[in-house]
Amino acid sequence: MINSQTKIFAVIGQPVRHSLSPILHDWFIKKFKLNAAYAAFEVDAGNLEQAVNGLRSLGLGGFNVTIPHKESILQFVDDTSDSVALLGAANTLKNKDGFVKAFGTDPFGFVESLGEEAARFNGARVVVFGAGGSAKSIVYALGKLQVHYVCIVNRSRARAESLAGAALEKYGLHQVSVFDASKNILNDLVSEADILINTTSVGMHPLINESILPDSSAISKKHFVYDLVYNPGLTKFLADARLRGAKVQSGLDMLIFQGLESVRIWHGEHFEIGKDELKEIRKILKTELGINE
Amino acid sequence: MINSQTKIFAVIGQPVRHSLSPILHDWFIKKFKLNAAYAAFEVDAGNLEQAVNGLRSLGLGGFNVTIPHKESILQFVDDTSDSVALLGAANTLKNKDGFVKAFGTDPFGFVESLGEEAARFNGARVVVFGAGGSAKSIVYALGKLQVHYVCIVNRSRARAESLAGAALEKYGLHQVSVFDASKNILNDLVSEADILINTTSVGMHPLINESILPDSSAISKKHFVYDLVYNPGLTKFLADARLRGAKVQSGLDMLIFQGLESVRIWHGEHFEIGKDELKEIRKILKTELGINE
Repeated sequence: MINSQTKIFAVIGQPVRHSLSPILHDWFIKKFKLNAAYAAFEVDAGNLEQAVNGLRSLGLGGFNVTIPHKESILQFVDDTSDSVALLGAANTLKNKDGFVKAFGTDPFGFVESLGEEAARFNGARVVVFGAGGSAKSIVYALGKLQVHYVCIVNRSRARAESLAGAALEKYGLHQVSVFDASKNILNDLVSEADILINTTSVGMHPLINESILPDSSAISKKHFVYDLVYNPGLTKFLADARLRGAKVQSGLDMLIFQGLESVRIWHGEHFEIGKDELKEIRKILKTELGINE
Repeated sequence: MINSQTKIFAVIGQPVRHSLSPILHDWFIKKFKLNAAYAAFEVDAGNLEQAVNGLRSLGLGGFNVTIPHKESILQFVDDTSDSVALLGAANTLKNKDGFVKAFGTDPFGFVESLGEEAARFNGARVVVFGAGGSAKSIVYALGKLQVHYVCIVNRSRARAESLAGAALEKYGLHQVSVFDASKNILNDLVSEADILINTTSVGMHPLINESILPDSSAISKKHFVYDLVYNPGLTKFLADARLRGAKVQSGLDMLIFQGLESVRIWHGEHFEIGKDELKEIRKILKTELGINE
């Protein structure tokens, strides 16, 4: 029920037409009985400053920020959380009486999405595919999870090295190596690792027959394989890994938990969702994506 | 159900905490199955330009504009409807791809609220109490309704004369006179009139024992008496008039129909509400106001 106290939140990006955030946050609003409404605002790069001023002048509650504004938004905010300062990117803005602070909830969403599997990460050997914004959040989270080492596998070696440098200097990691995706050493890397994480869009709908690791022969049942892609629910990368006995997980729960963390930041309350509720929202999102599993 | 296509609308003003618009428009949204949400944004005069820029840059659908911004908003819009140009005030902004046009739906809301009583106005003699923004909208509507003459009764004669001038020059009225509220001639004016309209806030909650016409002895059953105040539902002015046999109407339906006209402007569709629906929304608004009748 809308009334004059209802707070407006929104995801801003371009495009945002296909964003799942409005559906996810509408579910949170109902689940936690928040006096709020959530929308998607398509904002041009050239209108970004106006959009943040709109947040302030209209007294909106906050924004989620998505591609391509996650980095450029920072020049228009009044304050940043520690993780945003370290990552140089934000996905959540909170407005309090015209003062706008930027937060990043992706690393947190990743960690919370792991559930019981989080215990695997302490001291683990991890291969991360990709070196973009998502990889940055994941590598930052791996620092918090105190993994043993991280191998960053990326087509562009320069970008991977930049991320490796940040990981060593700022994210608390002690062993980080960088590999060109074309190297034959890949199978060795995989067989020596405990955890594989795809942060690239390879395998995402509609190119569902592609995998970040075309030769999956080095994967075995000791592996935990995570794909940030959530559409399809089971990418070729994950399907191959599962066939080889590995435990696998898609990016859907990370999407849910990064959103949940935004809600906690906005409303200043530590909301939780139980197992049945998690199943419920997964189902809603999969239906929206047209995933039948 | 919110999704990424949901359009956001809002009332902007100061204060807006007690605005009924969010509840009214939430009802329209559900009734007409609009993919929209409606909020109240408290906007300072100093933030008004930023607010209109926020409307543009965030791609909101539109605003209702209330006190104290109805006039000052006009310097920030790209276009105005004919009635806004004539009235110098707006209560509705529509945003289309960053182009913002201002509309005024109060005169329309007044006319539509009359229902079958509208027929009384053609050739009628009308006394209007007050000469502020609301009086302006009413006198403009009286021009459209082709009344015979209008007497404007107001404490400040200067303001009343200014309105009378506009009525004669721009609103299509041919006979307009102005009276000081303290004049003894008031009873004569009333007994010669067919219709009395209070556009002031006299009698509004909590000062419910006040009436714009303390001596109601000149009112008789030939009169149609309208009060723009809707809280209480029956002001002392209306209660006295009813006791003397007059037909009376409160401002609640005008509130509803000015809102409906905004919805039509925003969505480009001629939505209608039937008698039962009108009863339903009246009841919702009265409940919100704490009116038990």
